Amino acid sequence: MQRSCLAIVLAAGESTRMRSSVSKVLHPIAGRPMIAHVMESLAAAGVGEAALVVGRDAEAVARAAARPDLRIHTVEQTERLGTGHAVLAAAEIIARGYDDLLVVFGDTPLVTPQPLKEALAAVAAGNDVATIGFETSRPGGYGRLIVRDGELIAIREAKDATAAELAITFCNGGLMAIDGRKALDFLRAITNQNAKGEYYLTDLVEIARSAGGRAVAVRASEAELGGCNTRAELAHLEALWQARRRDELMLSGVSMIAPDTVYLAFDTEIAGDVLIEPNVVFGPGVRIERDVVIHAFSHLEGAHVESGASVGPYARLRPGAHLHAKAKVGNFCEVKQAEIGAGAKVNHLTYIGDAVVGAETNIGAGTITCNYDGVNKHMTRIGAHAFIGSNSALVAPVAIGDGALVASGSVITEDVPADAVAFGRARQELKPGRAPILRARYQAMKAERQKRQD
Amino acid sequence: MQRSCLAIVLAAGESTRMRSSVSKVLHPIAGRPMIAHVMESLAAAGVGEAALVVGRDAEAVARAAARPDLRIHTVEQTERLGTGHAVLAAAEIIARGYDDLLVVFGDTPLVTPQPLKEALAAVAAGNDVATIGFETSRPGGYGRLIVRDGELIAIREAKDATAAELAITFCNGGLMAIDGRKALDFLRAITNQNAKGEYYLTDLVEIARSAGGRAVAVRASEAELGGCNTRAELAHLEALWQARRRDELMLSGVSMIAPDTVYLAFDTEIAGDVLIEPNVVFGPGVRIERDVVIHAFSHLEGAHVESGASVGPYARLRPGAHLHAKAKVGNFCEVKQAEIGAGAKVNHLTYIGDAVVGAETNIGAGTITCNYDGVNKHMTRIGAHAFIGSNSALVAPVAIGDGALVASGSVITEDVPADAVAFGRARQELKPGRAPILRARYQAMKAERQKRQD
Amino acid sequence: MQRSCLAIVLAAGESTRMRSSVSKVLHPIAGRPMIAHVMESLAAAGVGEAALVVGRDAEAVARAAARPDLRIHTVEQTERLGTGHAVLAAAEIIARGYDDLLVVFGDTPLVTPQPLKEALAAVAAGNDVATIGFETSRPGGYGRLIVRDGELIAIREAKDATAAELAITFCNGGLMAIDGRKALDFLRAITNQNAKGEYYLTDLVEIARSAGGRAVAVRASEAELGGCNTRAELAHLEALWQARRRDELMLSGVSMIAPDTVYLAFDTEIAGDVLIEPNVVFGPGVRIERDVVIHAFSHLEGAHVESGASVGPYARLRPGAHLHAKAKVGNFCEVKQAEIGAGAKVNHLTYIGDAVVGAETNIGAGTITCNYDGVNKHMTRIGAHAFIGSNSALVAPVAIGDGALVASGSVITEDVPADAVAFGRARQELKPGRAPILRARYQAMKAERQKRQD
Repeated sequence: MQRSCLAIVLAAGESTRMRSSVSKVLHPIAGRPMIAHVMESLAAAGVGEAALVVGRDAEAVARAAARPDLRIHTVEQTERLGTGHAVLAAAEIIARGYDDLLVVFGDTPLVTPQPLKEALAAVAAGNDVATIGFETSRPGGYGRLIVRDGELIAIREAKDATAAELAITFCNGGLMAIDGRKALDFLRAITNQNAKGEYYLTDLVEIARSAGGRAVAVRASEAELGGCNTRAELAHLEALWQARRRDELMLSGVSMIAPDTVYLAFDTEIAGDVLIEPNVVFGPGVRIERDVVIHAFSHLEGAHVESGASVGPYARLRPGAHLHAKAKVGNFCEVKQAEIGAGAKVNHLTYIGDAVVGAETNIGAGTITCNYDGVNKHMTRIGAHAFIGSNSALVAPVAIGDGALVASGSVITEDVPADAVAFGRARQELKPGRAPILRARYQAMKAERQKRQD
Repeated sequence: MQRSCLAIVLAAGESTRMRSSVSKVLHPIAGRPMIAHVMESLAAAGVGEAALVVGRDAEAVARAAARPDLRIHTVEQTERLGTGHAVLAAAEIIARGYDDLLVVFGDTPLVTPQPLKEALAAVAAGNDVATIGFETSRPGGYGRLIVRDGELIAIREAKDATAAELAITFCNGGLMAIDGRKALDFLRAITNQNAKGEYYLTDLVEIARSAGGRAVAVRASEAELGGCNTRAELAHLEALWQARRRDELMLSGVSMIAPDTVYLAFDTEIAGDVLIEPNVVFGPGVRIERDVVIHAFSHLEGAHVESGASVGPYARLRPGAHLHAKAKVGNFCEVKQAEIGAGAKVNHLTYIGDAVVGAETNIGAGTITCNYDGVNKHMTRIGAHAFIGSNSALVAPVAIGDGALVASGSVITEDVPADAVAFGRARQELKPGRAPILRARYQAMKAERQKRQD
Repeated sequence: MQRSCLAIVLAAGESTRMRSSVSKVLHPIAGRPMIAHVMESLAAAGVGEAALVVGRDAEAVARAAARPDLRIHTVEQTERLGTGHAVLAAAEIIARGYDDLLVVFGDTPLVTPQPLKEALAAVAAGNDVATIGFETSRPGGYGRLIVRDGELIAIREAKDATAAELAITFCNGGLMAIDGRKALDFLRAITNQNAKGEYYLTDLVEIARSAGGRAVAVRASEAELGGCNTRAELAHLEALWQARRRDELMLSGVSMIAPDTVYLAFDTEIAGDVLIEPNVVFGPGVRIERDVVIHAFSHLEGAHVESGASVGPYARLRPGAHLHAKAKVGNFCEVKQAEIGAGAKVNHLTYIGDAVVGAETNIGAGTITCNYDGVNKHMTRIGAHAFIGSNSALVAPVAIGDGALVASGSVITEDVPADAVAFGRARQELKPGRAPILRARYQAMKAERQKRQD
């Protein structure tokens, strides 16, 4: 029989040191609010229900936390009297009765499902409390986990620790699984008889042991337990997340010339034998298939790039950009809500928006799809094997047939049938010998202007 | 009564290891010559007068050092016989009589006012000499500061140090405050009776103590005392400066997804709740107000961006660019000497130079303000709520009224009144079935060309 | 008399952990296959002949390794039974008789000629075996080099080492010079009587010593002996290579504001007093002369930039781009197979391909050379002191004479003589008061569309 589990997610922090107009758990890591990362790890650890303890920006936090595979109860914490008190904001929910309780923080977005599962398994195995700790080479001010014979004897605050205890490098991460049937009694036994007058969740270890129970500690990596109190720490968590994800991708067969300069989103999908050059930024919703090269200075979001395609340098793929196999987009080109057919080329200073470009079609330098009339967006449909001459403007809605040819510098306002040639440009006129006269006039203008300024 | 102080700024180095055609103190950190950073810290420490000891590029160095709040005397050092000798190049100035002397280097651009103030305060408190030192985990070849009962006993060169002294991690940074009334006597007592035959400023400690005086040492951070002998060290100082300034900004409420990729200038001003994406470069003269997002791959200099505006990706804001509230500029757009009105959009492959764009106006993709006739720059004035169709050329001087509409692909050479529609494009012509014929002709041309090459 | 030397290059690895569709030695470092870096170091060390031991992708590996100054014999390794066995794949070549043998790996692309020369010199001096080792602060699982009185006593695997031996920080790099006359006998004496059942080249030390011979060890840096088994390690080698080359350039007089963001190719040539801003990528074949500034976000390959020129920001120089002295290209401009004359300016949103631009000519914003008709590339020739108005399309083949002037927004299809003015644009038409009517129509269209969607 499956055990019932309630996660308590503490997300009520004031975030004053973030100096932010929104709650810190809404700040993004890899393009997604911190809190959403935490919720995903809970779901991946098999947790199905969570009490979200919120303070400021309650609605926005609840929205950011929501996901279809988690039943979430939002409870408000009105006073800030410590972690032990914060958990009790969910007392009514806890009282409904769960086998296990799992307390996590909204601002530790890098936590993976593994230690969460281990802590829950420890409680399922009969322990009353299972804290999640981490090994560190710089234990500094962290609380030390005193473990003897596999049992967690105490969490010792650094300031109360003996020299021998200070030498311990296994530290308290704050996250904790608790026997759900005993949790309320334990939590209500926490007092604020301490220097700061706060209710500390860590007291549960002593409380459980005093009641004859048993506590243990499970291990997570230091990186995944990192919290966030300032924007500098936010940037540090982002860096850790990025490093972890880049490594996963490289080990799966993706090449990055300079991994430190590649920024991934939480949902970036990249297949094997893809090469990513320096300075590439992925926004959310990108999927890259095999054998694609993404050249330097490219920026992709909401784009799907099929195998063998070439992106960049300086490609800007916006949502709805879909490059079919072996298509090429680069050199200051922007593509939005558009299909670029197999083998098609959009290669220089071009804007393709709300369009379909057929296979093997060549879009000349400086081509612009004029997709917006100030009110509506219109479609441009270009067939296969067509050729759009450079510096053309295609005024949507407009269709250009297979194999058609648009002369350079044209403004195309009407449909062009297949195999037709379309011109939309003025005839050239010459004024021989006129340039020196014009220049003299401009120079006089300049002199006049300077005179007036004096 | 305020004490009088003269700073001696040593900036006469030959900089041979920089392999540079200009003096090293002219090389920039954060977009400003090193020497200017030093002068700013002097001014901020309350110093009002400085003797600038120069060698090569004397005039350029003096120009770079100049600032309104510092009275600067430039003195030339003709021979290079050591720091003690260099300071004496300013002997005439020193002889005018100052309460305090403060010796600093032109190539330690990261020094902050704090240790300078502390050294001066130490002299004001009756000490004859106050050197500025730093704690380091890698003392290596640095001179060690031997301090006993708060008194600086000696500066011991690493090669002369005992094992116990080598274990000292408090090292000599070279900067020094000196009792201004005794300084000339002290300086003239320095000899060159040493291995290198140079006059060392560090001898002052011993000289002052022999005369019955007292020396002390004040502390600065290692980073701020870093000097610069090679371009690799220059890059290292730049990195330290950038890291320091990024941290300040993040702690003040600016978010940076990847702080290591954001390059700030010495005068960059960024308000709170601004988000900066990876790979953004700030040149001098930029001011960003609240709630702005600066997307990846943007480059700003001399620009003012008001609150809620969106910049980039790939925005190039040049001097005089002024984005009003909620304006948007991005995706390969360049803006120079132009007002972009509140809520206006300049969003794709556009050049706006010497222009005013009214509020809520939409500038279509590929629009170019033709502001230059080869001699003069001319203005383009666009009203509010106007719509400039894509790929248009606006030939300045030209004015487009409020609510006017320019058809896509137009060349606009004359003013467009408010609410008018302007066209400036050729009528489209079609040659049905002509494309295959043209292609065949091109293929024949190609075959012909290849034949000739064989 | 010069000694004859045969290098054995082991390049037959399966590279399974690279998860790659090609042999790992084909993966690039600094834009060139790893194996080519190794071959260059061999040639620079004076080696003239090499046996290339290949497995998968044999032909491609041989092609990548080829260079005119090395005679290369390709031999196939069919089974993978260890390094000792791999070297014997070249037994036939070895049997031809060489004074020295030098065994190197195809996946250590950072090895410099210096340790190779030293190992060969050690064999020339009468030693039978000279291994190449490195000092490291993290010896971990590496084999330790046990050296006594200048003699290499043994290579001890970490798992067989005593505590004292584990403390040794001089480790085995795997590369080795061998007396060419004894090499075959030595190699054939290697057995696979060990845990993994493989033939280890390292056994040669013991074998040579048992035969009364002498082994020594020479030193290389840890960085240059780094091998590559995963794409993460590939990225690490790239980072080491880049750091080494950037340092060389900075010490030679090149300034980099943020060296970590400058990516060089194996053959990038940059002269002194060049300034490189952050985020610049060099592909192969670039040569930069003195006093050039390369602004941020620039991407260069196959380009030659003469002294005093200015590149970027956002300059895309492609193969055949040649900027003459003091030319300027930047702000979203692409140049390909084109001469940009001295002092000429190509400064905004422009594509110049297959072209010659004369000295001091100004190319307006948004200019496009229409160089491709879908089949052939054609030339655009622009004279000196010409002026191309903004947003013009120059339809090649076309020539524009010295001092000529092309009006903004023109499509130029026919030659323009020197000093002529050319127009190629439609006359402007106005429809006063029409914009509100059009807008109302667009709004109606929008309403209609939304109605249909409901």
